[in-house]
Amino acid sequence: MSLTDLQNQELEDVCSIKNTTRRPTVEALEEILYKPLKALDHGFVRLVDYMGNDSAVVQAARVSYGSGTKKLNEDKGLINYLMRRWHTTPFEMCEIKFHIKLPIFIARQWIRHRTANVNEYSGRYSIMDKEFYIPEIEDLAAQSQINKQGRSTDVLSAEESHRVLEMLKDDARRCYDHYMEMLNLNEETQEILDPNKAGLARELARMNLTLNYYTQWYWKTDLHNLLHFLRLRADDHAQYEIGVYADIILDIVKKWVPFTYEAFLDYRLNAVNISGKSIAVIKKKLAGENVTAEDVGMSKREWQELISLLEIK
Amino acid sequence: MSLTDLQNQELEDVCSIKNTTRRPTVEALEEILYKPLKALDHGFVRLVDYMGNDSAVVQAARVSYGSGTKKLNEDKGLINYLMRRWHTTPFEMCEIKFHIKLPIFIARQWIRHRTANVNEYSGRYSIMDKEFYIPEIEDLAAQSQINKQGRSTDVLSAEESHRVLEMLKDDARRCYDHYMEMLNLNEETQEILDPNKAGLARELARMNLTLNYYTQWYWKTDLHNLLHFLRLRADDHAQYEIGVYADIILDIVKKWVPFTYEAFLDYRLNAVNISGKSIAVIKKKLAGENVTAEDVGMSKREWQELISLLEIK
Amino acid sequence: MSLTDLQNQELEDVCSIKNTTRRPTVEALEEILYKPLKALDHGFVRLVDYMGNDSAVVQAARVSYGSGTKKLNEDKGLINYLMRRWHTTPFEMCEIKFHIKLPIFIARQWIRHRTANVNEYSGRYSIMDKEFYIPEIEDLAAQSQINKQGRSTDVLSAEESHRVLEMLKDDARRCYDHYMEMLNLNEETQEILDPNKAGLARELARMNLTLNYYTQWYWKTDLHNLLHFLRLRADDHAQYEIGVYADIILDIVKKWVPFTYEAFLDYRLNAVNISGKSIAVIKKKLAGENVTAEDVGMSKREWQELISLLEIK
Amino acid sequence: MSLTDLQNQELEDVCSIKNTTRRPTVEALEEILYKPLKALDHGFVRLVDYMGNDSAVVQAARVSYGSGTKKLNEDKGLINYLMRRWHTTPFEMCEIKFHIKLPIFIARQWIRHRTANVNEYSGRYSIMDKEFYIPEIEDLAAQSQINKQGRSTDVLSAEESHRVLEMLKDDARRCYDHYMEMLNLNEETQEILDPNKAGLARELARMNLTLNYYTQWYWKTDLHNLLHFLRLRADDHAQYEIGVYADIILDIVKKWVPFTYEAFLDYRLNAVNISGKSIAVIKKKLAGENVTAEDVGMSKREWQELISLLEIK
Repeated sequence: MSLTDLQNQELEDVCSIKNTTRRPTVEALEEILYKPLKALDHGFVRLVDYMGNDSAVVQAARVSYGSGTKKLNEDKGLINYLMRRWHTTPFEMCEIKFHIKLPIFIARQWIRHRTANVNEYSGRYSIMDKEFYIPEIEDLAAQSQINKQGRSTDVLSAEESHRVLEMLKDDARRCYDHYMEMLNLNEETQEILDPNKAGLARELARMNLTLNYYTQWYWKTDLHNLLHFLRLRADDHAQYEIGVYADIILDIVKKWVPFTYEAFLDYRLNAVNISGKSIAVIKKKLAGENVTAEDVGMSKREWQELISLLEIK
Repeated sequence: MSLTDLQNQELEDVCSIKNTTRRPTVEALEEILYKPLKALDHGFVRLVDYMGNDSAVVQAARVSYGSGTKKLNEDKGLINYLMRRWHTTPFEMCEIKFHIKLPIFIARQWIRHRTANVNEYSGRYSIMDKEFYIPEIEDLAAQSQINKQGRSTDVLSAEESHRVLEMLKDDARRCYDHYMEMLNLNEETQEILDPNKAGLARELARMNLTLNYYTQWYWKTDLHNLLHFLRLRADDHAQYEIGVYADIILDIVKKWVPFTYEAFLDYRLNAVNISGKSIAVIKKKLAGENVTAEDVGMSKREWQELISLLEIK
Repeated sequence: MSLTDLQNQELEDVCSIKNTTRRPTVEALEEILYKPLKALDHGFVRLVDYMGNDSAVVQAARVSYGSGTKKLNEDKGLINYLMRRWHTTPFEMCEIKFHIKLPIFIARQWIRHRTANVNEYSGRYSIMDKEFYIPEIEDLAAQSQINKQGRSTDVLSAEESHRVLEMLKDDARRCYDHYMEMLNLNEETQEILDPNKAGLARELARMNLTLNYYTQWYWKTDLHNLLHFLRLRADDHAQYEIGVYADIILDIVKKWVPFTYEAFLDYRLNAVNISGKSIAVIKKKLAGENVTAEDVGMSKREWQELISLLEIK
Repeated sequence: MSLTDLQNQELEDVCSIKNTTRRPTVEALEEILYKPLKALDHGFVRLVDYMGNDSAVVQAARVSYGSGTKKLNEDKGLINYLMRRWHTTPFEMCEIKFHIKLPIFIARQWIRHRTANVNEYSGRYSIMDKEFYIPEIEDLAAQSQINKQGRSTDVLSAEESHRVLEMLKDDARRCYDHYMEMLNLNEETQEILDPNKAGLARELARMNLTLNYYTQWYWKTDLHNLLHFLRLRADDHAQYEIGVYADIILDIVKKWVPFTYEAFLDYRLNAVNISGKSIAVIKKKLAGENVTAEDVGMSKREWQELISLLEIK
């Protein structure tokens, strides 16, 4: 995440802006606006713009003429109610925009969230930076044997890790060197290497890069869809690397819309969707009755998850 | 569009806000922020919030670290280029939010634009206002005999107009009186009329209102989708009543993003999609050749439109 | 729902089709294809086309070359797993298309489900039918005093009902008569009434109709979004009138994708989203501990709902 | 595109299906259903399912009870009209589903079309195949010096090409070998290599693959959005590799909905969006007047494009 002098100058310029507005502002966001928050080894999350706050949710829910706020207490209650009853449209009335730098294999997961606006750095048009993601040793997890779609809690041995990192680094570097050679460009100066060569089209040469190369994009979405993204990606089942980004954004949401954030934790992130059968089990248990997985036609795996969730011995 | 005292107080409150922000602001928008701009007889368009400006389009297109602006001239050129080549995603990086009051039959057209966020005043929850749309006499157009989906340029005779307005007003009023009677509420005081009656559920009683009753909503969309809406609704083929709203919004776009507005006029609103066959006709005409509708397999209606567009005698 | 002779002939024609296809078919759907299933007094749901079945969900989840099916038992298990873990994209691989006739005030709720394709009968282009919804006496519910957004379980008295029905019918009829008079058309023959009058444009005259008039549309959506629609609209909190349509469609889903239907019942329709605080309460209760609303910072209303859900005395 | 025996068996199974249906079928599509149509060196397009035909467009536009068809001639005229006037919703009433195998760098472009349903082969869950894209020598285009976002019409010299292909192949192979080594799996047998190693999680190891590796997905969209995709991707400005897929799909559209296909060619693919200024130029030229770029305030590049489009000398 080492920015060039030009980029740093650009950043300083936007950070020094002071405008007057009648729109709602959020002080805690103004402080972090434009500043790159580090993610993984070379990535970042930069808040670029935002629209609305907790009051804007209330204002839209009430279709009111003013700012929506009556008393803070009532606003909080209404936000809780909306979140609890899945009245999602008022949360669509807030919008947020980020500039994000992330590895391509994570970008491929991220982009599946379709209800967002995206402008990605174009490898057809521009030369890709020589920046690739290399995991920390403690993040080199083994394949899970239980959950085919995830990593185990075990990490690799020191020796195995060492070999993995060696391969990742070597391959990423070699692929980039060849990328630049195909483009017929000098890596340092980006000048033409050999005047007798034409240089392959950028849109083709980029295919030689590995999936841990960083890309970057502007990404803009509304609060409702952002929370949906966070619910899936700030979750244990998400891949660790996208989770790093989700956690940073979750922290920004906390600063932005504190009431909505609290409601989101209780009714979404810490909540559980309990199936009809599971509710039947809980009722029976609470009534002191005995009940087994077979009684309710529940699979073993599902039963185990319920028992573990409720901490029943 | 007569607001209550409470609504006026709420409006004054939000209009007196002065916040400091590092986000981009647009002075011409700050001036009209929150103020209801009159539309039709009782409707309005109120700008409630906005995100970004012309520079934000440029910034996203360049995925840049700063505000995107190099020189004003280059920005203008880039925006023209993006609009001309249908690079639409950078325009999605600006967002705008309105509070709109509009007749239900217009709301039904409007809502078909799906890529927007909407919170509508709820007739299940609240009592509808006694406000309905009555066209001006000069807008009482006759049915077109040529275009089945539209109105003619002729208006009704004075006598016919008079009768139409009479029916519209009488029916709207009677339906509202009965709506309140079903709710068992006094129209003036909204107090219970008859303590021995239960009052019909609001979600049912509302079905007795006519389609010219006003509803209101918060409506939020990005600049790209807003321009698409304007292209269709600020057009001659659109129904006059929705066009009134589109024109007001188009004027707001002009204040908000002047470069984008100009590009939009030239490449969208004043532009024409010319079919492959039509291009063949134009080429021949320019080369001094004679050509007929039959030569290119064009329908009469299409041929007429082309001739009329090119002002060929 | 009285169809014209022409419409009945059209229906018969499509019902007699027998084509051969290599695409998956669902016998139970073929039987009801094209037939109008009655909804409310004049509405209907007509299945017009469908794509895929339970196997298509499995096939997409496995990105497989064949039909996706291994053993029926494994397919069922996989569908349960996908539903339980909110892997929603495989359910998007089935598509269904309906022709639906419904009152306008219900259409206004329905259209808020944005992820669907819609073609509505155009009141700008065509003359609206003289068909309006009048509730059954047992559906004339009073306004709820507890839940502001809904109806009470009490119905109106015989006398109050009688008066409501009278107003609804009279107003609907009068508004339609005036609608035709504005159009200058005879109601029976749709011929011009008075050759000296021009007749108001259809797009204007329609505003005089009440919201219980029927409209109709073609509506097409994927299985995932259909289930989302059903979860909200086949629910107790939904307005009764839209629930009637949802129930008919739910029954079609049962015929179409029986495994998905069962999973949907258990993990969505009969499931409950339990907040983090509620889980804490359940754990304590199961461990035999005492706990109050205050202990966990839960609102009274929320606490009551939890107690009632779990049938705790 | 060498399928395994199992995959071939699966294919044969689905191809031998013969079902009876009352839904509309398209013979020309039934013939190619399920068969992989080769794209690039290892990719394919497989039609998996379809809903509707030209008549379904007409049926929805008319909101009719039957199949929509009156006379073939009228249907064709209506489809032309709908396409010409951008009445897009009737085209959303047809749906199509493909199984597609494509290089990752192309998949990244493709996925930006958001209005589609996608299930992609998961590199978190499964082992990626050893298949990567290597361009034909005649497709190794040089970077364009005029258009920064594209390739030139010149190809590389024999020597330069040779070196590029060498690098592409070597790097792709080495990266895959290391991918399997990280997974601790034998490439041929997919059995564990070294019992003393844990093997890196799949979701991590995949990041070592280059962007020309093939992925595959089920992709489903409606006809309107498909045509929008084709308009952009079967165009000269699209990258050649995605164009190969677009051309195959365009050919399928021709078989599927021949009337819509013809209208699409004339009003979209071969049509041009002419700006307001350009129309002014054409009018003057047709009237025999002289006009320059400066007269209408047009940029040089735009002027050149217009002159070249109209073949004016």
